[in-house]
Amino acid sequence: MVTNDDGISAKGIRTLYETVREFGDVVMVAPDSPQSGMGHAITIHHPLRLNPTDIYGDITALACTGTPVDCVKLAIYEVMKRKPDLLVSGINHGYNTATNVLYSGTMSAAVEGAMEGIPAIGFSLGAFEADADFSGTVDVVRTVVQEVLDKGVQEGVCLNVNIPPISAGPVKGIKVCRQAHAYWADRFENRLDQFGKPYYWLSGDFEDQQPADDTDLHWIEEGYATVVPTQFDLTSYSAIKDLENWEL
Amino acid sequence: MVTNDDGISAKGIRTLYETVREFGDVVMVAPDSPQSGMGHAITIHHPLRLNPTDIYGDITALACTGTPVDCVKLAIYEVMKRKPDLLVSGINHGYNTATNVLYSGTMSAAVEGAMEGIPAIGFSLGAFEADADFSGTVDVVRTVVQEVLDKGVQEGVCLNVNIPPISAGPVKGIKVCRQAHAYWADRFENRLDQFGKPYYWLSGDFEDQQPADDTDLHWIEEGYATVVPTQFDLTSYSAIKDLENWEL
Repeated sequence: MVTNDDGISAKGIRTLYETVREFGDVVMVAPDSPQSGMGHAITIHHPLRLNPTDIYGDITALACTGTPVDCVKLAIYEVMKRKPDLLVSGINHGYNTATNVLYSGTMSAAVEGAMEGIPAIGFSLGAFEADADFSGTVDVVRTVVQEVLDKGVQEGVCLNVNIPPISAGPVKGIKVCRQAHAYWADRFENRLDQFGKPYYWLSGDFEDQQPADDTDLHWIEEGYATVVPTQFDLTSYSAIKDLENWEL
Repeated sequence: MVTNDDGISAKGIRTLYETVREFGDVVMVAPDSPQSGMGHAITIHHPLRLNPTDIYGDITALACTGTPVDCVKLAIYEVMKRKPDLLVSGINHGYNTATNVLYSGTMSAAVEGAMEGIPAIGFSLGAFEADADFSGTVDVVRTVVQEVLDKGVQEGVCLNVNIPPISAGPVKGIKVCRQAHAYWADRFENRLDQFGKPYYWLSGDFEDQQPADDTDLHWIEEGYATVVPTQFDLTSYSAIKDLENWEL
């Protein structure tokens, strides 16, 4: 199964589809419009539609009115009526490194796959442009997909793969590492509209809070693609110990 | 700072406000409409509004057109222009146990607080009704808030607090525990609309995949409120070791 968060007609999902079709039959269920920043959102308060498209020839390719996580749920429970052998999400236009994994619709689709027990991988390229050059991603996607199909991933885990842009030179290799502790130092564009009423539009700079040489941000800086195994158990087991002396 | 995902006029946030105002000055920035299931979504593609309300007397209480995470960002960077001493989110109408933490706007607001280095707590009551009885939550909220203010929480962690409904009898106590490995066995209501076109509406049953006696679902079943320390580092460190033998 193939999905993404940039929308079913994005260049990144086309690249992903064209690479993974070598491995088996593809079903695509992806948002009909950009869903960047939707995180793990699901649609509860209104119904969803699945509109067939023929932009990928004769494979099943459905444009969904919902979020990336909605796409995964609909694909499994309404379209395929079974769990796929592999779920791939992306290729995102823009990195999903560090804590961006929480905001990312691309990665939330992969996490949802892991929750369903499906081997799942989210792919992202370090270039935002709609016409970004995805040629440097093909080898990385092929290598990671082959390893996941051969060796599987442990229960409760999916993979977050980030790939540097071709403008940074050839990819030097693929590193398994941890999520950096970085976050958005947010700013808002705070302006008055044409009626004199204020509005706020999210902006901001991404800052590495604790630079270290075992993180995705570090290895990308060094010219490598990165693989962060990503889990949906958010429990802090070390904090459970800290809380033992609380008076509750 | 007080926020939620059910909307600024929900009974749960009023209860939370009335309980935490004993501890200090309150600023409220909360969604102007229900945002359940929005997860860690942020609004990128359009601007946001903050509309003042006086439903909480003369405190700053702003109804935001965005998601719960948008509310946290706006409160810090545009309203308070500093980080609050404490962020509380909720009280959600309905549990946010187990993997629901990923779908929950209430908990995503608390996780966003942790990412900003703010002591943060999400509260949820096991009753969905708009007029649910929140009287059983007051002692739990007061106890947990007091402990967080006294002892702090470790970096990178917030607290996920779930409280059984009054209909289950008096709360027996408060247990620190881990997130259960449960998930939604999803179904969709698949119908035809009045024009004969299909639509899909999310439904489903929540199932505990691996029942165990150290989880939030277990202790709630036993009549306790639960505290799960929740982190934003999704790296699976055990899986990093597994991947060492991969050919990448």
